[in-house]
Amino acid sequence: MDRTSIDWTGAMPAITTPFTASGAVDHDGLAANIRRLMAAGATGFVSAGCTGEFWSLTEKERSAIYKTSASTIGDKGAKIVGAAAITPAAVLEALHAAREAGCDAGLVMPPYFAHLTDREIIRHYELVAADAPLPIMLYNIPGNAGNALTPDIVDVLADLDPVVAIKESSGDWINFHKTLNIASDRIKVFCGPSSTIGVPAMLAGCDGLVDCFPNVWTGCIDMWSLFKDGQIETAWDYQARAQALTDLFVSGGRTLYPATKAAMDHLGYPGGGTPRAPLQPLEGTPLQELLQGLERILGRKSSRGLSRTTTLELEGSTTQWTSVSKDAPQS
Amino acid sequence: MDRTSIDWTGAMPAITTPFTASGAVDHDGLAANIRRLMAAGATGFVSAGCTGEFWSLTEKERSAIYKTSASTIGDKGAKIVGAAAITPAAVLEALHAAREAGCDAGLVMPPYFAHLTDREIIRHYELVAADAPLPIMLYNIPGNAGNALTPDIVDVLADLDPVVAIKESSGDWINFHKTLNIASDRIKVFCGPSSTIGVPAMLAGCDGLVDCFPNVWTGCIDMWSLFKDGQIETAWDYQARAQALTDLFVSGGRTLYPATKAAMDHLGYPGGGTPRAPLQPLEGTPLQELLQGLERILGRKSSRGLSRTTTLELEGSTTQWTSVSKDAPQS
Amino acid sequence: MDRTSIDWTGAMPAITTPFTASGAVDHDGLAANIRRLMAAGATGFVSAGCTGEFWSLTEKERSAIYKTSASTIGDKGAKIVGAAAITPAAVLEALHAAREAGCDAGLVMPPYFAHLTDREIIRHYELVAADAPLPIMLYNIPGNAGNALTPDIVDVLADLDPVVAIKESSGDWINFHKTLNIASDRIKVFCGPSSTIGVPAMLAGCDGLVDCFPNVWTGCIDMWSLFKDGQIETAWDYQARAQALTDLFVSGGRTLYPATKAAMDHLGYPGGGTPRAPLQPLEGTPLQELLQGLERILGRKSSRGLSRTTTLELEGSTTQWTSVSKDAPQS
Amino acid sequence: MDRTSIDWTGAMPAITTPFTASGAVDHDGLAANIRRLMAAGATGFVSAGCTGEFWSLTEKERSAIYKTSASTIGDKGAKIVGAAAITPAAVLEALHAAREAGCDAGLVMPPYFAHLTDREIIRHYELVAADAPLPIMLYNIPGNAGNALTPDIVDVLADLDPVVAIKESSGDWINFHKTLNIASDRIKVFCGPSSTIGVPAMLAGCDGLVDCFPNVWTGCIDMWSLFKDGQIETAWDYQARAQALTDLFVSGGRTLYPATKAAMDHLGYPGGGTPRAPLQPLEGTPLQELLQGLERILGRKSSRGLSRTTTLELEGSTTQWTSVSKDAPQS
Repeated sequence: MDRTSIDWTGAMPAITTPFTASGAVDHDGLAANIRRLMAAGATGFVSAGCTGEFWSLTEKERSAIYKTSASTIGDKGAKIVGAAAITPAAVLEALHAAREAGCDAGLVMPPYFAHLTDREIIRHYELVAADAPLPIMLYNIPGNAGNALTPDIVDVLADLDPVVAIKESSGDWINFHKTLNIASDRIKVFCGPSSTIGVPAMLAGCDGLVDCFPNVWTGCIDMWSLFKDGQIETAWDYQARAQALTDLFVSGGRTLYPATKAAMDHLGYPGGGTPRAPLQPLEGTPLQELLQGLERILGRKSSRGLSRTTTLELEGSTTQWTSVSKDAPQS
Repeated sequence: MDRTSIDWTGAMPAITTPFTASGAVDHDGLAANIRRLMAAGATGFVSAGCTGEFWSLTEKERSAIYKTSASTIGDKGAKIVGAAAITPAAVLEALHAAREAGCDAGLVMPPYFAHLTDREIIRHYELVAADAPLPIMLYNIPGNAGNALTPDIVDVLADLDPVVAIKESSGDWINFHKTLNIASDRIKVFCGPSSTIGVPAMLAGCDGLVDCFPNVWTGCIDMWSLFKDGQIETAWDYQARAQALTDLFVSGGRTLYPATKAAMDHLGYPGGGTPRAPLQPLEGTPLQELLQGLERILGRKSSRGLSRTTTLELEGSTTQWTSVSKDAPQS
Repeated sequence: MDRTSIDWTGAMPAITTPFTASGAVDHDGLAANIRRLMAAGATGFVSAGCTGEFWSLTEKERSAIYKTSASTIGDKGAKIVGAAAITPAAVLEALHAAREAGCDAGLVMPPYFAHLTDREIIRHYELVAADAPLPIMLYNIPGNAGNALTPDIVDVLADLDPVVAIKESSGDWINFHKTLNIASDRIKVFCGPSSTIGVPAMLAGCDGLVDCFPNVWTGCIDMWSLFKDGQIETAWDYQARAQALTDLFVSGGRTLYPATKAAMDHLGYPGGGTPRAPLQPLEGTPLQELLQGLERILGRKSSRGLSRTTTLELEGSTTQWTSVSKDAPQS
Repeated sequence: MDRTSIDWTGAMPAITTPFTASGAVDHDGLAANIRRLMAAGATGFVSAGCTGEFWSLTEKERSAIYKTSASTIGDKGAKIVGAAAITPAAVLEALHAAREAGCDAGLVMPPYFAHLTDREIIRHYELVAADAPLPIMLYNIPGNAGNALTPDIVDVLADLDPVVAIKESSGDWINFHKTLNIASDRIKVFCGPSSTIGVPAMLAGCDGLVDCFPNVWTGCIDMWSLFKDGQIETAWDYQARAQALTDLFVSGGRTLYPATKAAMDHLGYPGGGTPRAPLQPLEGTPLQELLQGLERILGRKSSRGLSRTTTLELEGSTTQWTSVSKDAPQS
């Protein structure tokens, strides 16, 4: 198998897992969110991934989510599911459940927590690939997983038979671009954070966008059609707006997923609600500032000025630079 | 003054300072390099900047370089000079020498070495701006200077009267893009490392490219005309090649400026030669691998496969990820 | 409960989980390793923690390990078990299993993988503490968990009733020392990496040492008695030797746990063997260099010269500094 | 020459350069500060170093400071001077001025700003050593200089004839300790930040303390005599207090040197006053909080509770861990 085995393209959101008041998985909300985003142009979905708080789900719950996703999406989009786990055996278990649920592929990150050598990371994927019942989308998310799928590692993994695509979510443009250059002859390359580097990724030839922000703002889906229609200037405007959303969601005592759910609730979208522990619902100042920020960012006609930090507090700040890469020349 | 006060655009190389065998500044080599790059399409130059090893020059030598640059460039390009120093008084001294030499503007980085607050960085530029005899191009190069011109700081500095442009050399795409979005209504924004992010920078609307790589490969000048001519696919191919050059120049016991001079020598270009201490000429394995890499990168017709690390040494490697930005979501 | 509720002190190794040739947990090897280390002076154990590859164990296997540890240790030492998990519910499940197995306490790290705010980390421990059936030893291991128990957070957690101790494994001396200063009035503070900062930690008044290196070298247990006997100079000599072991174990294509098991095998100790995937057994050059390094470090009478990197390769190296803490003065 | 060529020991403060209202060097204040600190037990001084804002001094001013220091100290202490520069020639110029002024030695950091290979750093010192008219104290301050003197580099430099000592100011305990272990057989090893790791450094056998904090609090001088008198518990108490001062001085919009001068002014000590641009005097909230912090830290009898962050703001904080060293095990 390779990139020609699949026809995935466009914006495929990573969707939240909503929970009911009693704490159970809210399958109705899940399905409603999928239908809303399909109507907005989504061409596929990743369910039970990071945005879906996979770490808080039992295996049974995860399988049920796989099934709800599959039946809701039907043949109208790619049915990809999060298959994150630390051991090859546990990844395979998730892939089998996904196949049984009628899904198309599994999103497989490298093992997290333990520090691994490049050789161990490759061996992990070899073990998974040998028995995988479904195509695999690689997943590079080093800021959480600790272990990275570097371009050199992806170059090796792209030759494994079930590997057909990658979601490159390092957030580092140069790493994304190297990965695209090295692997797009064999696998489809999707841009992780459409909200920060989606437009250059599309201009460089990526196959699509897979991330969390469409849950809150379908502008991150429109970005793809704007690009395809040649409305590049508007796409850049959307990029600036999405960047402002990103900065808002991960500052001021907020992290991405609780902020996403709080914003969905505020905007009246299905799929939000209370996250599961260890995540906690936003409240107090972080919540108030989120809502003000949403108003500021989504309620205006252009992105002009959005790059500014809301409250410029130069008085008390000391910005010490951490180089992107220790060997990178800045010249 | 503002961005309309100047007509700078295109590729304006930061040029080396060649030295003679006896260690003096080689003004003939300097002029020859300028003429060569003008013939290749350069629209301006930064002399006596980082690439020009400013830290090793006496004030007298620096002034002489300013003069040679100005007279060689004449009215055929922008005559910008490095004016790096730690105190406002020393920056102003350089700017006055530049004006006397007939140059157009000074490139001014924030003070280096000492850790500064944002307020101190802004105050530094206010003190310089108050007495500046020439327009100022801001210079963000935090990997060397330690202190960064963040987008929020640039937003303030863009309102200072003599400030007309910025060379954004953080190497971090998102920082570059935020700076472009926040300041390009008032000042011209030039992309520092054309070799790594030049194409997306041009596509996003930057005003030009200013960096070291044209000294070695005029493809980094051609990138601009390719872009202007709408040959975007070829421009991306050049980008991949320039990225491979970058990786080559700053790995395996090499750093940027000695590698640049060694490559210029090898390619028969004027402007190379021995760098001044503390930089040392390349020799031994680092030199041999540089020359082999040049052959591999510049001697082929397309960039296909160049993203691969030359020698894939996965056996002994452990890639630990350092997040680009601690708050960035990877989703 | 507080630090007076327990009498833990001294060197309490975090032990490996050995596996049989068929891949099952090797309970005999586990018990043999415990007995060997008790004979060497260990005053307690952490089983099924990081060193014990907790991430590769089923719940059933983990409970069985808890039981073997408890029955082997008996009343001759502290019976502490790893209770790592991402949700409070899963942590509590582990603690209940530990209580049932007759263990004394659970080692509880903050949730890993997802980025959490300080408030979410504290809330996690509050939820765990409210129902904990056993005393809790906090566990700060940010290099793996991603989320840190900063001194300020520990200051809050030290007031939760079941919290009686902390294993501070940041590896950063200043963070360790601040934690000791802020919390040792209420909870016992154990030094995580005895192999790198054990001696200053003992001199500063820590309650004991909990880490992986005693599995390979009981000198890390002797360190405690040397200190108690006032043989400080010898203790510093042991520290230098343990630092050299540390450097050896996490360089050259090696990571800590596979290197530990390979070294145990080489030295003829029980408890080694093949790690479980995703970890892979050392082989080839990384293994050969490990064995040579062991000979070099453990086979000599003093630590003199051990700080030197085995092969000084200054030719090809470029050491770029990453500041320990962005705000720390170096003066 | 080697460590036996000098008799330096104890606390040798790095002193400020005070300026008069008109901006000239205040030689009276400089001398008064030296006399005050000698009376408090200082056994030597570093003048015109980082604390002395070397980057803002003309060569003439620097030489004058050398002379004032030398004549004020006389034969009552070590007369060491900052000789920071980027080229070997400029370092030698400073060393010759120091010799002429009657000083004992020069403190020489590696070249800053430009990224250097280890080979270039060593070559720099070889060039300086070949013509040095005075003994050299190496200076490792990577957080400012960018280039580090790693233990392996120090191991080489310790064999250069004029090198007799090192001021290790990385702030990283493990780096300090490795440097001590590798080089103290040949050169004297002084601890840079006495305020954060002075006590473990003394316990591990360092030769003395050289840093900025004695300007503000002579407790950092007393630390040495407490240690020599065996009053270790009190020394640890002083350490905690000095750590709290450090945290205060480099947070909340403050950096080390302006905070030091503001604190000296507040406490009525000579040697403070207004720093030179690019540093700016503290004012507003950063100043007010500094004075409150000084009261809180120096106005109490013990260090109990000082490790707490003044204002615990867990609501809005997200602590993302940056590992001290990417390869360090945390176990």
